[in-house]
Amino acid sequence: MNNAAIPVTLAPSVAATRFLVEEMFEALRQGSPGNPGITRAPYGEGEDFAHRLLADRATALGFEVSRDAALNTYVTLAGRDRSAPVLMTGSHLDSVPQGGNFDGAAGVVAGLAALVAIREVMPVPPQDLVVMAIRAEESVWFQVSYVGSRSAFGLLPAGALDGARRIDSGRSLGEHMAEWGADVAALRGGARHLDAAGIGGFVELHIEQAPSLVEAGLPLAIGTGIPGNFRYPDMVITGEQAHVGLPRRFRRDAALAGADFAAGLDRIWAEHEARGVPMAATIGRFHTDAALHGMTSVPGRFLMSLDVRAYDAGVLSALEEAVLSLVRDIENRRGVRFELGARASAPVGPVAPAVRTRLEAAAGVLGVPWQPLGSPASHDAATFAQAGVPMGMIFVRNENGSHNPAEAMDVADLMHGIGVLAGWMATPA
Amino acid sequence: MNNAAIPVTLAPSVAATRFLVEEMFEALRQGSPGNPGITRAPYGEGEDFAHRLLADRATALGFEVSRDAALNTYVTLAGRDRSAPVLMTGSHLDSVPQGGNFDGAAGVVAGLAALVAIREVMPVPPQDLVVMAIRAEESVWFQVSYVGSRSAFGLLPAGALDGARRIDSGRSLGEHMAEWGADVAALRGGARHLDAAGIGGFVELHIEQAPSLVEAGLPLAIGTGIPGNFRYPDMVITGEQAHVGLPRRFRRDAALAGADFAAGLDRIWAEHEARGVPMAATIGRFHTDAALHGMTSVPGRFLMSLDVRAYDAGVLSALEEAVLSLVRDIENRRGVRFELGARASAPVGPVAPAVRTRLEAAAGVLGVPWQPLGSPASHDAATFAQAGVPMGMIFVRNENGSHNPAEAMDVADLMHGIGVLAGWMATPA
Repeated sequence: MNNAAIPVTLAPSVAATRFLVEEMFEALRQGSPGNPGITRAPYGEGEDFAHRLLADRATALGFEVSRDAALNTYVTLAGRDRSAPVLMTGSHLDSVPQGGNFDGAAGVVAGLAALVAIREVMPVPPQDLVVMAIRAEESVWFQVSYVGSRSAFGLLPAGALDGARRIDSGRSLGEHMAEWGADVAALRGGARHLDAAGIGGFVELHIEQAPSLVEAGLPLAIGTGIPGNFRYPDMVITGEQAHVGLPRRFRRDAALAGADFAAGLDRIWAEHEARGVPMAATIGRFHTDAALHGMTSVPGRFLMSLDVRAYDAGVLSALEEAVLSLVRDIENRRGVRFELGARASAPVGPVAPAVRTRLEAAAGVLGVPWQPLGSPASHDAATFAQAGVPMGMIFVRNENGSHNPAEAMDVADLMHGIGVLAGWMATPA
Repeated sequence: MNNAAIPVTLAPSVAATRFLVEEMFEALRQGSPGNPGITRAPYGEGEDFAHRLLADRATALGFEVSRDAALNTYVTLAGRDRSAPVLMTGSHLDSVPQGGNFDGAAGVVAGLAALVAIREVMPVPPQDLVVMAIRAEESVWFQVSYVGSRSAFGLLPAGALDGARRIDSGRSLGEHMAEWGADVAALRGGARHLDAAGIGGFVELHIEQAPSLVEAGLPLAIGTGIPGNFRYPDMVITGEQAHVGLPRRFRRDAALAGADFAAGLDRIWAEHEARGVPMAATIGRFHTDAALHGMTSVPGRFLMSLDVRAYDAGVLSALEEAVLSLVRDIENRRGVRFELGARASAPVGPVAPAVRTRLEAAAGVLGVPWQPLGSPASHDAATFAQAGVPMGMIFVRNENGSHNPAEAMDVADLMHGIGVLAGWMATPA
């Protein structure tokens, strides 16, 4: 078989998985209601339901199914040489609160469909092909990035098990993990399930989280990189709570200091945008203290979160310097004090040129129109890159953004993505 | 007796009330704990305690005590001609949540002490002298201004009884009033207890709510006017909730729109400050939606309150035009929508020159250093001015602002204020 033609050879089998794909999304939707939308809390009910659903379907389809100490699920199509480096795909199964059905799950469903399609044509591939369903990717819950994928590689920061608490329950990551059967003691001991040397490559398929592909009228994008980030999840500004009658020269208004910060950060982003340097800066939580605020008080306390991301480590560290300088400037001007609180960060996740080239070739031979795209968001694939695994990404067009109930991926677009993914997994390096 | 010398004649009797004054503050403090500070919720436990305390002490001291339909308390030293226009003083007894012991209460305690001191020298004054303890002045609770004083004059806006709800309980003003024994049916019927024609003048003594007097090193100020205001207690900005990966050009960030609004309003104030036009603008509540916000979401919804005040009706209406124009500008620039919600307002409260002159004369003859001061805050005295009563104000130095547990009025400063107040009440027009 001509390597370049493999994606075309697989195409009828890929097309035949459409029913499986649609049935999986429907089962996921029904099993994890968010009222509105979808809620699959990490190490919670919705996420666990999704992992059980995947394990049940994959077992019924005859694949090997296993779990690691952090409860990530692995679905394997066994290859001829079981000690050869495996090819992997996958994504996460958790969601934000009241999110959509496709952010994360699309990559897992696509992986399962790719295995089914490949097995039709190639019952025993040269090496194991593995779909990984990853835990706890959405950092809104524990304010820690990549919990599942980093646990699998033994890369979860010390302290996260006890230090990170889920926003809704207030209970620690370790407690939540243990509740669903994770081997927390093994994780504390530094257990690792995955080793970069044993993985030939990892491709994550994900819905696009912005409307670039809708704007461009294209079903797919091939990833060029994943941004690194720095985060301050719990910034606090302290000024002085005061009476509404206090003249301007005496005020130390913590909310106005927050407003200055947000406006300053937006200016920094606008400058980068104008120079064509990709980045993003988001203040997701931005609020006066509900226990103190009122119409006739000058706010003395203001709380916010910060997430800044970029594709280049140099850009990222310059941005952090700019943020800290903005903070000092506002502190002096408004007579307030910023406590930055805990800092978290994730390194930039470079895409491996070899993986990218093969994904592009697969899309080309299948005649699927695509564009290159720097991922605007963070993804578990960055953990694989960090660990040293050659990594790539496929983005699928999605109409209304993600992290909301209106996510609208067309399954026809996803089927193109599965074709490219299966083509990559089935083509010898 | 020489009229100009009356304040001096009263001075020993005023000085003798110091024990009563200190004992009243201590009893108020003990009876309305806020943990921290003081909480005297209007038509709630703390406020009612304070009214009962005042009524008990005044009755024990031999004064006439009565209440009106809205539960304002009146303490009267009966005069020779009981049909002559009375001279009144007073202030409110409610506080903000976790406020201080002096905002409001100082004016009531001062009034009682003034009556005691005057009676020593002048057992039967020419006309009735009345101290009014006013209900529900702090508009943070019901987001309605001057509930008690406007009820007394029959000026409370129709609809407030059912439409205004207390922020902590969610129950209506009418329900809260009825719970403590107010005659809500009478208020609905337009009952009025006070008539401007029957009042020769009203002076409110209040702690200063800013550190101007501390800065100037003066114990007292004589008021030159009370600002009017316009308020939008419940503004809502709607943008689009989105994923943290959404590029800048697609974002409709409601929190950034809020930040732009706060910064724009602060610029407007800074311009007025530079031109020497007194005003104040406060955004006391300023927050993302706690049910939706998170570190990795672009905020789609933002909530805030607005209070803008000035001493001149023309300045005030130009300010409102500037605010609305700022809103339109941000709506266009950020692709968001502002809902202004309910609007409330209070007219400018002019000080009567005759009252002001007499207060200044009393301070002069007593040798108390003072300065003129435009009240930075709203006060019930504005209701008296609106009703047509000649009105004046005395401000007492106060160290740490008001509406917080650290309010620090020196009783020695207050005793100067009581001297000026008693001098005004005891001097025939």
